[in-house]
Amino acid sequence: MSAFSFAVEGTDGEARAGVFHTPHGPVQTPQFMPVGTLASVKALDPEDLQRLGATMVLSNAYHLRLRPGDETVRAFGGLHRFMQWEGPMLTDSGGFQVFSLEGLRTIQEDGVEFRSHLDGSLQQFTPESVMRIERNLGADVIMQFDHVVPGQSPHDLAREAMERSVRWLERCRVAFDQLQREDTLAPTPEQALFPIVQGGIHADLRRASASAIQGVADWVGVGIGGLSVGETKPDMYAMLDVVNEVLPKDRPRYLMGVGFPEDLVEGVARGVDLFDCVAPTRMGRTGAFFTPTGRRSIKNAAWRLDQSPLDPTCTCAACARFSKGYIRHLFVAEEILGLRLLSLHNVHFLVALMREARDAVLAGTFAGWSRDWLARYHSRSTVS
Amino acid sequence: MSAFSFAVEGTDGEARAGVFHTPHGPVQTPQFMPVGTLASVKALDPEDLQRLGATMVLSNAYHLRLRPGDETVRAFGGLHRFMQWEGPMLTDSGGFQVFSLEGLRTIQEDGVEFRSHLDGSLQQFTPESVMRIERNLGADVIMQFDHVVPGQSPHDLAREAMERSVRWLERCRVAFDQLQREDTLAPTPEQALFPIVQGGIHADLRRASASAIQGVADWVGVGIGGLSVGETKPDMYAMLDVVNEVLPKDRPRYLMGVGFPEDLVEGVARGVDLFDCVAPTRMGRTGAFFTPTGRRSIKNAAWRLDQSPLDPTCTCAACARFSKGYIRHLFVAEEILGLRLLSLHNVHFLVALMREARDAVLAGTFAGWSRDWLARYHSRSTVS
Ligand SMILES: [Zn+2]
Ligand SMILES: [Zn+2]
Repeated sequence: MSAFSFAVEGTDGEARAGVFHTPHGPVQTPQFMPVGTLASVKALDPEDLQRLGATMVLSNAYHLRLRPGDETVRAFGGLHRFMQWEGPMLTDSGGFQVFSLEGLRTIQEDGVEFRSHLDGSLQQFTPESVMRIERNLGADVIMQFDHVVPGQSPHDLAREAMERSVRWLERCRVAFDQLQREDTLAPTPEQALFPIVQGGIHADLRRASASAIQGVADWVGVGIGGLSVGETKPDMYAMLDVVNEVLPKDRPRYLMGVGFPEDLVEGVARGVDLFDCVAPTRMGRTGAFFTPTGRRSIKNAAWRLDQSPLDPTCTCAACARFSKGYIRHLFVAEEILGLRLLSLHNVHFLVALMREARDAVLAGTFAGWSRDWLARYHSRSTVS
Repeated sequence: MSAFSFAVEGTDGEARAGVFHTPHGPVQTPQFMPVGTLASVKALDPEDLQRLGATMVLSNAYHLRLRPGDETVRAFGGLHRFMQWEGPMLTDSGGFQVFSLEGLRTIQEDGVEFRSHLDGSLQQFTPESVMRIERNLGADVIMQFDHVVPGQSPHDLAREAMERSVRWLERCRVAFDQLQREDTLAPTPEQALFPIVQGGIHADLRRASASAIQGVADWVGVGIGGLSVGETKPDMYAMLDVVNEVLPKDRPRYLMGVGFPEDLVEGVARGVDLFDCVAPTRMGRTGAFFTPTGRRSIKNAAWRLDQSPLDPTCTCAACARFSKGYIRHLFVAEEILGLRLLSLHNVHFLVALMREARDAVLAGTFAGWSRDWLARYHSRSTVS
């Protein structure tokens, strides 16, 4: 019997509440996954993640291939042991990163040749080599190697990339199946390969992609890629509506690289179960923090004497102890603790938001809850 | 009855084991105090400090006067509440910092005029103003404003600074007594003012300083300043021997700004009870870490595949979970978690070292323990 399964426990409109079982434990959905690009969620300790309620963490095959190397990670017993995260994990294939190396990469049908952004060394990613890398890393869920194009790409370019992604998916599947059969001593012997729906902002291509993917195999879950890469929000939401219609209802859907609080709520409303984004930690390092009434900057002089927490309704370890005035002082004085506290609060904010959404789905109140939540979040300027 | 008291529980040679009681709780001595210059022990959370066994934390009047301002800290209820450290605290007066501003300060009998290292604004520190600042900050122990000169200063210069420090001590005491009487709503109503023994590397001056200080008042405890500021280690140890002889045995002695592990052991052997130093966190941020056989650098390529902790005998939260190979990866990838883990280990190392020294004193084995410990620590090069 597979270690992977997905059970939908309740629905409300298109929103779903479920449990996704993995070899490293269950994940209640909808769920936000913090991103540990280089085997560390920036400025946070795995203990912080556990305490704030995160259950699944993401890492990146492209970055770990270059540093410290996937074989090094495997020598340490895989990502879970290397970074001391015992819960479920997912690795992105690096497709997004490789295709971002404008001018440093050559795309051919076989794969992509590129130069490392670190030392300029020549590297090659093919569907087969990426499956090997992700095998060595040992996440529970591994993403296919795909061809990603900018969000506003025209139909012909988006179509070419989508069709290549499907052909690469077939090669990923063959390589993945062989590794599962033959490489039984890998850190996580049973992994799940997720295909990725592409097609840019073109509804017909999204439908074609979803359909082609389902022709290749019966997947444990599905990724939705190529969104939040430059297209407008209405375009993104429209594509989610399209994809939601054609993907199987009994499998988890993972919207890649999204996003901000409002995107998560809009995504759940369109049948998405899993999210990831570097935003909460990246924004935390620049001084931005989420509140139920929008985004704020801790650098604002108005907080200088403010003794209240970042968000009085928040239960994170930063808000439970520290004032905005103190955290502002830490930022002004460039103290590392300031980065950690804001990152911690922001990740907690998204994790707690998805827990709240889940409760609303199960209570059958999601439509009203999400409308009210979005209205409140947008009630003031997000800059203050 | 005073909230401050000191009980010597055991001695072994000149080494002492005691308990120093403060309004925020007891401190077992000898003890190492981590330094939170700007109301944050760099890269660490107060929770980390508590968990690794630190009991007393140091902060700095000069730095906090400039950022965020001592009155701001007071408005937050004092340093304890501002930085969420409920245990004993000590503030240095800023004398060392002010006198380090070579070219930016003018020394007169009344006090020191200086330009802020941040914005060049003109500031003045006098014994009276420093007592006010430290009153506002609200540490348990506050240090006098003193005149610090470089470690190898000639006799006449060292004498001038020492004598001025004594005159300033008298003014500090008057201002301190008045604040204790009149400013009863201060964050920590009962504080202890520590005088500072000066005199450079000149035994006669050290003796004269200790004697003059004791003529001013009956102090709760005494600081030993102007060491580890450029003089040789033999000179420093010789001065400690001199000071140890002439200071009262029933009061805690705090050796300021010292130091490295070997200095702590040598200091305890010469009757010192309290230590502080930025070394463990500063070194941690540059990749250096302490082990019982000397100092190492995490950047060493030899650790790339090393699955063992920084120190297999260490019980800190970094060593309990992470490998040298992983922490080295974090440093190479410039991940903030790496700084935190090394800082945590280094502070734990010094705190645990003093706990071990204390046990040895109480067991009557300090002489042998310290000889063995130092031999082992110096057994290999400290750079690897
Ligand atoms: Zn919070
Ligand atoms: Zn350790």
